[in-house]
Amino acid sequence: MAIENKAPGKDVSEEDLQSKFPLAAKKSPDHKSLVTVGDVTFGGDFIPVFAGPNMVEDEAMIVQTAREVKARGASFLRGGAFKPLTFPYRSPKYTETREDGVAWLKKAKEETGILVITEVMEERYLDLICETADMLQIGSRNMQNYPLITAAAKTGKPMMIKRHFGCSLRDWLGAAEYALIEGNSNVVLCERGVAAPHTHRGSSRFLLDLQAVPAAQEVTHLPVVVDPSHATFWAPWVAPMSLASVACGADGIMLEVHPDPPNSAVDPLQPIGFEPFGDLMKQMDATAKVIGRRVL
Amino acid sequence: MAIENKAPGKDVSEEDLQSKFPLAAKKSPDHKSLVTVGDVTFGGDFIPVFAGPNMVEDEAMIVQTAREVKARGASFLRGGAFKPLTFPYRSPKYTETREDGVAWLKKAKEETGILVITEVMEERYLDLICETADMLQIGSRNMQNYPLITAAAKTGKPMMIKRHFGCSLRDWLGAAEYALIEGNSNVVLCERGVAAPHTHRGSSRFLLDLQAVPAAQEVTHLPVVVDPSHATFWAPWVAPMSLASVACGADGIMLEVHPDPPNSAVDPLQPIGFEPFGDLMKQMDATAKVIGRRVL
Amino acid sequence: MAIENKAPGKDVSEEDLQSKFPLAAKKSPDHKSLVTVGDVTFGGDFIPVFAGPNMVEDEAMIVQTAREVKARGASFLRGGAFKPLTFPYRSPKYTETREDGVAWLKKAKEETGILVITEVMEERYLDLICETADMLQIGSRNMQNYPLITAAAKTGKPMMIKRHFGCSLRDWLGAAEYALIEGNSNVVLCERGVAAPHTHRGSSRFLLDLQAVPAAQEVTHLPVVVDPSHATFWAPWVAPMSLASVACGADGIMLEVHPDPPNSAVDPLQPIGFEPFGDLMKQMDATAKVIGRRVL
Amino acid sequence: MAIENKAPGKDVSEEDLQSKFPLAAKKSPDHKSLVTVGDVTFGGDFIPVFAGPNMVEDEAMIVQTAREVKARGASFLRGGAFKPLTFPYRSPKYTETREDGVAWLKKAKEETGILVITEVMEERYLDLICETADMLQIGSRNMQNYPLITAAAKTGKPMMIKRHFGCSLRDWLGAAEYALIEGNSNVVLCERGVAAPHTHRGSSRFLLDLQAVPAAQEVTHLPVVVDPSHATFWAPWVAPMSLASVACGADGIMLEVHPDPPNSAVDPLQPIGFEPFGDLMKQMDATAKVIGRRVL
Repeated sequence: MAIENKAPGKDVSEEDLQSKFPLAAKKSPDHKSLVTVGDVTFGGDFIPVFAGPNMVEDEAMIVQTAREVKARGASFLRGGAFKPLTFPYRSPKYTETREDGVAWLKKAKEETGILVITEVMEERYLDLICETADMLQIGSRNMQNYPLITAAAKTGKPMMIKRHFGCSLRDWLGAAEYALIEGNSNVVLCERGVAAPHTHRGSSRFLLDLQAVPAAQEVTHLPVVVDPSHATFWAPWVAPMSLASVACGADGIMLEVHPDPPNSAVDPLQPIGFEPFGDLMKQMDATAKVIGRRVL
Repeated sequence: MAIENKAPGKDVSEEDLQSKFPLAAKKSPDHKSLVTVGDVTFGGDFIPVFAGPNMVEDEAMIVQTAREVKARGASFLRGGAFKPLTFPYRSPKYTETREDGVAWLKKAKEETGILVITEVMEERYLDLICETADMLQIGSRNMQNYPLITAAAKTGKPMMIKRHFGCSLRDWLGAAEYALIEGNSNVVLCERGVAAPHTHRGSSRFLLDLQAVPAAQEVTHLPVVVDPSHATFWAPWVAPMSLASVACGADGIMLEVHPDPPNSAVDPLQPIGFEPFGDLMKQMDATAKVIGRRVL
Repeated sequence: MAIENKAPGKDVSEEDLQSKFPLAAKKSPDHKSLVTVGDVTFGGDFIPVFAGPNMVEDEAMIVQTAREVKARGASFLRGGAFKPLTFPYRSPKYTETREDGVAWLKKAKEETGILVITEVMEERYLDLICETADMLQIGSRNMQNYPLITAAAKTGKPMMIKRHFGCSLRDWLGAAEYALIEGNSNVVLCERGVAAPHTHRGSSRFLLDLQAVPAAQEVTHLPVVVDPSHATFWAPWVAPMSLASVACGADGIMLEVHPDPPNSAVDPLQPIGFEPFGDLMKQMDATAKVIGRRVL
Repeated sequence: MAIENKAPGKDVSEEDLQSKFPLAAKKSPDHKSLVTVGDVTFGGDFIPVFAGPNMVEDEAMIVQTAREVKARGASFLRGGAFKPLTFPYRSPKYTETREDGVAWLKKAKEETGILVITEVMEERYLDLICETADMLQIGSRNMQNYPLITAAAKTGKPMMIKRHFGCSLRDWLGAAEYALIEGNSNVVLCERGVAAPHTHRGSSRFLLDLQAVPAAQEVTHLPVVVDPSHATFWAPWVAPMSLASVACGADGIMLEVHPDPPNSAVDPLQPIGFEPFGDLMKQMDATAKVIGRRVL
């Protein structure tokens, strides 16, 4: 009785590497791409860190954050001006700052010289965002918005593609291939937690999938960043999971850092403050040295 | 020791109904909306059926399909002209037919009078698609593309919002709220399978979540459609899961039907042929009668 | 670069059918076993129903329940005397009734003539339980307790093996093979909900996996029962999911029925009362007739 | 409309800590138990390592393994004599070695002085195993076999309770409570991978849940061990995930180490050899030092 079919399956197969994502696939076991943004390179011994608030709330807070995280070793300021929120209702405090937010990011960049990454949600704002951002973030929720990925790739800007919390490694590499096929080879991936049967606490909607780091690095030459803040959604777990991310081979770390975490406009359970961030940077650096890499 | 936090949680709470999706939430236990498209109404005793191929391959096949499924009781012709594919490579056979596909759908509609639903992926094609489509489909992969949902809602066309395979009921109702807040009250939801630890066969990437039908109907007044074809990804399971969908209260059924299933351009393991479709329509109708509803 | 390995995978493969569960595997597409218990047969047109409380609370309630569910068409009285509880603490009301519970089941059987199924947790109580039970239930939590399955199989009693909520179809068939290899061919499987990323409500810890019904029936000749009560954990969803279970081909239905649901000793959100049970039996029977089967 | 119910939920709540697992629950934020086995202590700065084969194959291999892993810093020899296998069929090579296996473990212990942990599956073999084992392992598949946990706890031997791959933190702490309530306070927990929607490769059936380490340590005072070998099921991922386990705070590491990995009797894709084990021990030690702990 023939029960087999030729369905492609959920996992990455040898055949996929050739036919589905030939550009994202490794060509040899030690094939690893270097992706350079400004004076920072992903994929080598140095592990760049992205730090900043979930939302760019106002000019003062984002300039202050840029200064403080740069002083502690962050390569990139992160912060959302355009943000996909699960519901269309926002308190005054929780409103997207959009064009203003981008302008404040620009100010932070000018004042500190830090590199900037921010999320793009719509093609129409790409030009505006590209004036300021050094790197474009495709958020988890838009990982399968292929027209957006294509448009972003065409700008030539370096890109980070966050994994959707319901998507497989195979889906994720498919999204990367949409960018690579446009001739934009400056693509890094970012794991930020997956939907799983058990996430332990009401506070944690996702499970940080660190196994995805060696799994992805086994099949793709693209650098793999990890974002423990959005995955755990719970500040007390951010430091241990950040160290674990470095230890298992992450090529970059993205962290939510806020001047005043309990008063963060979005998800106040998640960010860490400047001092804990500084301590964590030192610990991540020491962890990285164990495997011949560095964070500072 | 205080371990609690105020995180919103993964599941729908009473508070969410008031603050997160007041428009999607039921106001009383028997609150159920009727959504009318042409001469068809969702949410009443009649259970409309959508049938057609995954991809609109050419004019002849889509006109033939429209005729055959209409003759067997389908209210809607479904077929993708613009389609998000996991990888950017397509065989000649597997290429999106885009503007041509929409034109062929129009032809099928003119020749048979059947209602048409098709997927929208980009705001720029909304006008084109609205000329032909009676209902706009937001696909699973774009469920969290809120600008697209907003733009689609503004056209005033009835909409179907498919649940992303990694998203919760809470996320799904959030997406619906983005449409409702634009004043477009003609919104139906569609369950099409979720990512789960075990899907039984290499053939099945998803698990059809029928528990979502009573769960969604408990909290929202919007009609809930089920698509067993995309969920099971395996034709032999489509008939039993379609009957189960009707039995548990689905307000509509979407089925992949193809003139020649083994030669379907996309996912040939999934569609059923015209004769099995006709048989299934009769069985679904008999099942519906058990709970005071009808399919034919 | 060789990335493939020979790992067995998570899903049922053709090779498994021959080498891993040759006794549980179908030998031909229409191979389906009949399992007879007393005067009831599973796997044919008739769909037997198990009904009763989660816990055998006292003699009066179990005798009353046996009488009421039998009068409404149930073939089996279900009720736990020995029960695995997640925590070792029980209120006086919530205490296992153990030997007493088995004696009360015996009384119910003698008074009504109904068949009895109850859970076995330890080999030492097998003799005691076999004096009363017509069918032995291996609970979800003991699905991988292979010595228990072996010992239960050796008694020759018909057995139901419930699927663990974290286990695959492959794991489940492996458990059945442990019974079959002892020469006990009277084995039925029972799906009772799986752990999944999203279960919609705080009330629902599991997702009823109805796709497992056609999936299991595709590869095994053993009858497949469904228990919507334990899966949904929420009485309002039990009726729709029971009808869906029948519609998709379940070979038996297990339901939690209690004389006074809000005062059930265990999980009071889950059982339904006698009148709703009677109504549901009629609706399940009408649904079964659609596919040439019957419940009454 | 009241949609709320009083269901206990899937995650650990404040109320659970008081009523469901008062013995396993932390009493204050810095409450952490020390569990001592022979001359080794879990829960302090030192992180003990368990190493050895999946199955005790013969005397020579287990004695050799004991010597080699001890020389490289392992505190415990691990190896299965009694093992729950998913299917009842075993090649001659793959057969449980049972009483012989226990005798060979004893020999290895006598020759090297290493501590021994091995799995218990049935109460009837507890006395036999307790003569040799310094620590009893309750395997993943028996995590909810509460009579077995109770019987094992009553021996007074230190115990490791592995998390079932489908179980929540709440379920796991419930299992621990069954041991603690017997007065056996020498209990350690072990995470070994969970069933999840995406595990990346056909080789990986599970996802190592490192988020469970800080999550468990937030609510329980019991030490938390991690087993990356069984979780990843794939040797190339074992080293990075072991370093990550140490980095996120694991109180012990369990590794599958075999004299000749490709010829391992069970799961040959999973074990690492002696030299890689030695290198990994040094890297884990260096990683531990970052957080003030040590492996060597």
